[in-house]
Amino acid sequence: MSEYIEHDKDGVSVGLVEKKYFTFAEPPDDMLLEGNARLGPVTIAYETLGTLNTDRSNVVLILHALSGDSHVAGYYSEDDRKPGWWEIMVGPGKGIDTDKYFVICPNIIGSCMGSTGPSSINPASGEPYGFDFPVVTIGDMVKAQKALLDHLGIKQILSVVGGSIGGMQVLEWAVRYPDMVISAIPLASTTRHSALAIAFNEVARQAIMADPNWSKGKYYDSTKPNLGLALARMVGHVTYLSDEAMRRKFGRRLQNKSDFSFNFDADFQVESYLRYQGQKFVDRFDANSFLYITKAADYFDLRRQHGSGSEAEAFAKAKASFLVISFTSDWLYPTYQSKAMVKAMKKNNLDVSFCEIEADWGHDAFLLPNERLSALIKGFLDRNFNELQKK
Amino acid sequence: MSEYIEHDKDGVSVGLVEKKYFTFAEPPDDMLLEGNARLGPVTIAYETLGTLNTDRSNVVLILHALSGDSHVAGYYSEDDRKPGWWEIMVGPGKGIDTDKYFVICPNIIGSCMGSTGPSSINPASGEPYGFDFPVVTIGDMVKAQKALLDHLGIKQILSVVGGSIGGMQVLEWAVRYPDMVISAIPLASTTRHSALAIAFNEVARQAIMADPNWSKGKYYDSTKPNLGLALARMVGHVTYLSDEAMRRKFGRRLQNKSDFSFNFDADFQVESYLRYQGQKFVDRFDANSFLYITKAADYFDLRRQHGSGSEAEAFAKAKASFLVISFTSDWLYPTYQSKAMVKAMKKNNLDVSFCEIEADWGHDAFLLPNERLSALIKGFLDRNFNELQKK
Repeated sequence: MSEYIEHDKDGVSVGLVEKKYFTFAEPPDDMLLEGNARLGPVTIAYETLGTLNTDRSNVVLILHALSGDSHVAGYYSEDDRKPGWWEIMVGPGKGIDTDKYFVICPNIIGSCMGSTGPSSINPASGEPYGFDFPVVTIGDMVKAQKALLDHLGIKQILSVVGGSIGGMQVLEWAVRYPDMVISAIPLASTTRHSALAIAFNEVARQAIMADPNWSKGKYYDSTKPNLGLALARMVGHVTYLSDEAMRRKFGRRLQNKSDFSFNFDADFQVESYLRYQGQKFVDRFDANSFLYITKAADYFDLRRQHGSGSEAEAFAKAKASFLVISFTSDWLYPTYQSKAMVKAMKKNNLDVSFCEIEADWGHDAFLLPNERLSALIKGFLDRNFNELQKK
Repeated sequence: MSEYIEHDKDGVSVGLVEKKYFTFAEPPDDMLLEGNARLGPVTIAYETLGTLNTDRSNVVLILHALSGDSHVAGYYSEDDRKPGWWEIMVGPGKGIDTDKYFVICPNIIGSCMGSTGPSSINPASGEPYGFDFPVVTIGDMVKAQKALLDHLGIKQILSVVGGSIGGMQVLEWAVRYPDMVISAIPLASTTRHSALAIAFNEVARQAIMADPNWSKGKYYDSTKPNLGLALARMVGHVTYLSDEAMRRKFGRRLQNKSDFSFNFDADFQVESYLRYQGQKFVDRFDANSFLYITKAADYFDLRRQHGSGSEAEAFAKAKASFLVISFTSDWLYPTYQSKAMVKAMKKNNLDVSFCEIEADWGHDAFLLPNERLSALIKGFLDRNFNELQKK
């Protein structure tokens, strides 16, 4: 996803939030991963917003994308200028109304934002895992989230919501734990990475691994592979925007110049933007986490893991109501991929609403202010909450 | 462009061809470049196919794209297994019929395939130019080609033909030397690079420049920046294909495996393909040339250089008949960009034919066998040749 959007702090916000941690799978009871490796202990960083109601029927589980974290909305302190990554959607009276719903947002395993990942200490060596960290899948991430929900005493989720790789987790939740999930909202997502999406991820990974400072993943005590990670982020940023979005945002406008430099400086604003995004990213993200999370996304294939190759069969066990949302200009996970999942859901007589939102901002559109999107999500949550109360 | 297509050598071919060289702009009469630097001496590598007719009215100038060269068709020797890059289009009886037309294909300056570029010897230092090579533009490339045509005694070009960056040169020819150009065929091209196209080029350039072996362009006596150049090529290859092309060509098929590796090997065929294309490219192409040619493409802006900001005005001096061709799945230079140039041409009452060809193969489609494309080009050339004979 793109860099977080700057907000007016005086706007409506859930306010102060606290990052919490839950650790489980202590050895010898490590967590068995899909790749048959074992991982433990496993820590999940998470944040909660709003209040759990007495019958625990108002849980909304929000799942983040590649570079996200548990900090979905609100601020860490009075001085904090930067709210969580989905501040526009999550808060009092917003699309996901924290006055009404109890929001839980966990950081995925494999990440570097508090949950166990390659930069965590490997208990076997006393040093960061680095490339000894086992490959984790979207299924493994969801399995770890389930342990967190068990720990919190949550037996039923009103809605699982997430975009992009967060949307993959949404789908995995609905299929893996059908009795827990009342409703699910996968946004700008897919049941399986296309060759194009894999190709972009592979280029980004190769950029990191080609950086001599990557040192096969053992760089935590030395210079970090910042050039490689910045490049990987630049590749990502191109895929998050659309041709139209880039034309509107940058066009061929020059950077502080009236003419070309006739050298290899950043002449165009789009070049300067990409360099800046790349450089900014290295301060907050771990290169190995980028490798592991993109690999998990590439491996994700709902029909392979749950449907013996059939997309319809993959949803055979699902029980949730779905709200599937795609964006017209998203060329990373184009609408036809959302339509394919909707078709598979319908074959299983699931309650599915589908909406393709007209948006020029490419894959990133799900993170940007959009009244229609907020209204859709709000309406869907309220309907599912009201129906649940009637039962 | 993609790697050359393998051909059956027994097919119809122009046969043996020879690479020739023409050197001009000897100091102190160096060539003045658009960026106000001077370059000299300038060598142009070129190849000719077919026979120049007595009234010199059958010249077809073919201009290549980023990684192309003067070797447009035919073979260098009896043992040569690899024909020129447009063998499917150029030869006896083909779309560009060498029995009828005299084909000239020069290598662009800035390249590394025989014409003067950053890997050429800088007379001032006796060493390869490296990053001391001046930035050249599409206009500079065309100006150098004009010197070659003057040298060959060619005063009139029946048709200038080229795809992608070759298409930019086609447009530049038509606008810069309107009295010489009877007709012009820009394929899968644009009058100006979009922010998206600049973004991809910038990521590719940063990949090269982030490779420590790049050494600010001074690597000709030492280890070359192969990792960076391979990455740059991988970025390029993703943009040459389309989502649909990649799905058909690779889908999610695994590479020699029945299951995931759960490590960072190339699991998917598309990963393996990209790595292979990247590695293969470094044997035949120079990293600095990649930097210079992509920069020239990014700078290309017909309305800025020739139209005071207006696309219609940019074509005001052009006299050629145009055949503009785009491909449905080309997302590097999408059809709307070809339509914009067609509109601008029509505003100047130019004779324009436009065709969007249904093709799933993305930007690379112009290089792939396509009977419709061959027939279109053949018909257009013949019409222009016949009309010229009548005059």
